[in-house]
Amino acid sequence: MSTSSSISSIVQFDALKDFIARALQANGLSLGDANKVAMLMAQADLQGSDGHGVIRLPQYVKRIRAGGINVNPQIKVVQDKAAMAVVDGDNGMGHLVVSHAVELAIKKAADAGVAWVGTRNSNHAGPASLYARMPLAHDMLGLYFAVGNANHLPPWGGLDMLLSTNPIAVAIPTAEEAPIVLDMATTVAAYGKVKAKAQRGEMMPEGWMIDRQGQPLLDPKRSEEGFLMPIGGYKGYGLSLVVGILAGTLNGAAMGRAVIDFNHDDHSVTNTGQAIAVIDPSAFGDVTEFKARVDHLVRELRGSDRMPGVDRIWLPGEQSEAKRLAYARDGIPIAPALLAQLNTVSAQLKVPSLLDTAV
Amino acid sequence: MSTSSSISSIVQFDALKDFIARALQANGLSLGDANKVAMLMAQADLQGSDGHGVIRLPQYVKRIRAGGINVNPQIKVVQDKAAMAVVDGDNGMGHLVVSHAVELAIKKAADAGVAWVGTRNSNHAGPASLYARMPLAHDMLGLYFAVGNANHLPPWGGLDMLLSTNPIAVAIPTAEEAPIVLDMATTVAAYGKVKAKAQRGEMMPEGWMIDRQGQPLLDPKRSEEGFLMPIGGYKGYGLSLVVGILAGTLNGAAMGRAVIDFNHDDHSVTNTGQAIAVIDPSAFGDVTEFKARVDHLVRELRGSDRMPGVDRIWLPGEQSEAKRLAYARDGIPIAPALLAQLNTVSAQLKVPSLLDTAV
Repeated sequence: MSTSSSISSIVQFDALKDFIARALQANGLSLGDANKVAMLMAQADLQGSDGHGVIRLPQYVKRIRAGGINVNPQIKVVQDKAAMAVVDGDNGMGHLVVSHAVELAIKKAADAGVAWVGTRNSNHAGPASLYARMPLAHDMLGLYFAVGNANHLPPWGGLDMLLSTNPIAVAIPTAEEAPIVLDMATTVAAYGKVKAKAQRGEMMPEGWMIDRQGQPLLDPKRSEEGFLMPIGGYKGYGLSLVVGILAGTLNGAAMGRAVIDFNHDDHSVTNTGQAIAVIDPSAFGDVTEFKARVDHLVRELRGSDRMPGVDRIWLPGEQSEAKRLAYARDGIPIAPALLAQLNTVSAQLKVPSLLDTAV
Repeated sequence: MSTSSSISSIVQFDALKDFIARALQANGLSLGDANKVAMLMAQADLQGSDGHGVIRLPQYVKRIRAGGINVNPQIKVVQDKAAMAVVDGDNGMGHLVVSHAVELAIKKAADAGVAWVGTRNSNHAGPASLYARMPLAHDMLGLYFAVGNANHLPPWGGLDMLLSTNPIAVAIPTAEEAPIVLDMATTVAAYGKVKAKAQRGEMMPEGWMIDRQGQPLLDPKRSEEGFLMPIGGYKGYGLSLVVGILAGTLNGAAMGRAVIDFNHDDHSVTNTGQAIAVIDPSAFGDVTEFKARVDHLVRELRGSDRMPGVDRIWLPGEQSEAKRLAYARDGIPIAPALLAQLNTVSAQLKVPSLLDTAV
């Protein structure tokens, strides 16, 4: 890889989606499921979540081939009340399980005003914001919590990596402004970002990781020798813990030592847990007025006086939105090292390579 | 104050509660309301939340006397569905409004599995954990969000203080272990902690606040010259924003520039917003099994190998629980400067002073 070009290839969204869908179909997913997962994975790349999109395909394929994912899952509701449900994913692709959960939560929130749906026997599902955003199409708010698929975080003061980056995403509808979409790991950096740095051959900034002696760890290729830092010290540790309990323990999904490190184990059932809460603002009052109030707030924040050297105040989700528009227009960059991996996958699966995938 | 003794007085919980109740009754609250607020304020001190307990009494009294709080509020539900409600607090004491909201959410969660109740026209209600903890008595989980009552945080990169410390609290029931109770400002330090430092004549650690030039601000008496730092940089800014929208904007309560700084304005209606989500784990499966799983997780975390110099791994809420037990047994310390302020209040209201309040 050290001799490969540093110039990224550019692919259109549809080509990326079709490439992923064919690779998944070649691994036994139904056409419908393959298209659904591919759409979500390509949407991750489209919004610049490059640690969670097609970069994960080689790993997913490896896991499917090792028997670690059920390609024909019977996803079903196992607990159900007016404002909640638990969805058992039957070890299917996480994208399918979580989509199912979000669709159910939207339906329930339309009746009950608010709904919360948890998952178990799910799998890695890509960026949290994808799922928090889904209720936006119904003028609803989404809150998403997930148990990460590898433990990179010890309890505060500890050395045993018993917690993951357990992300939180919140999406809030607006009128004319871009929706507010917060998507954050409870660690300073998500592990996907560490992987992306490694793939690009870049060093990490200080503060992302420390080694077991508490010293800064800067080389992402040495990431296995240390652990991620939680945001705000003990606060981030606490957030990661409660997010993990809400998304995992509550649903009977894995947490703590029971979490399978999917970077090192391709075959064990991960029993991943996620949770989505959907809030229908029309239950709280007039939706148009609510969205106008959010727009007003966005403009107040954007209009703030700025510190020296700051060109612009960004709202959460605004940069992803800008990337989404730019990549939809200009195509999505694929780094050379990733392209090489994807070419290996396509050769192995005998599907057209990414750059040969016709739209 | 510089000449006063540095030795704290010790008061018993009941004496503190009775002192507060008499002061509130002398200001026009009904016996029932005064007792309810006093109980919650004294519970704040009992668990070591010393920025949010009796230290706030002089300010509350000042606000009531300035007409900024309605001492006879008609708290009522203005929006209602199976899993949600909005409670209008009629500008009553926040403790009364939020208690009302939590009790309603517990009832609704028992039916619907999950419930979310927001408030508007509420006021400052003390530490977030008090309210997140209430569902624990019903073996339920509580998630609490609030809009802070003074803006101390600019948007990331900005200078205008448009956001507050907007706290998050999450309480999770356990079997034999102390419940997990996370209570965190979305800033590195809560403003109550800054006030407590000022009152004790101590300096703040670096990282709590910066001035408008971006330089560390260490003297809490100069806190008006700078602003609080969000946890995890832009992540904490995003968290503060979405918490504020969930707790405020969604309910028609104040957010952004509309937030009244209750440190400088005693008479304007604050229109404070809060939100409580209650989750009934019995809807998700067997409660006993759930609590046993949380206990197991607590023990895994506590049993982690530790970094050099670390004596013990703490779980969120464990130190407050220890303080609660110790203060219930030994009494609650009241700093000399605070006692002097409370003596001024009791003289003004013609109620027995704190140290003279018989149990």
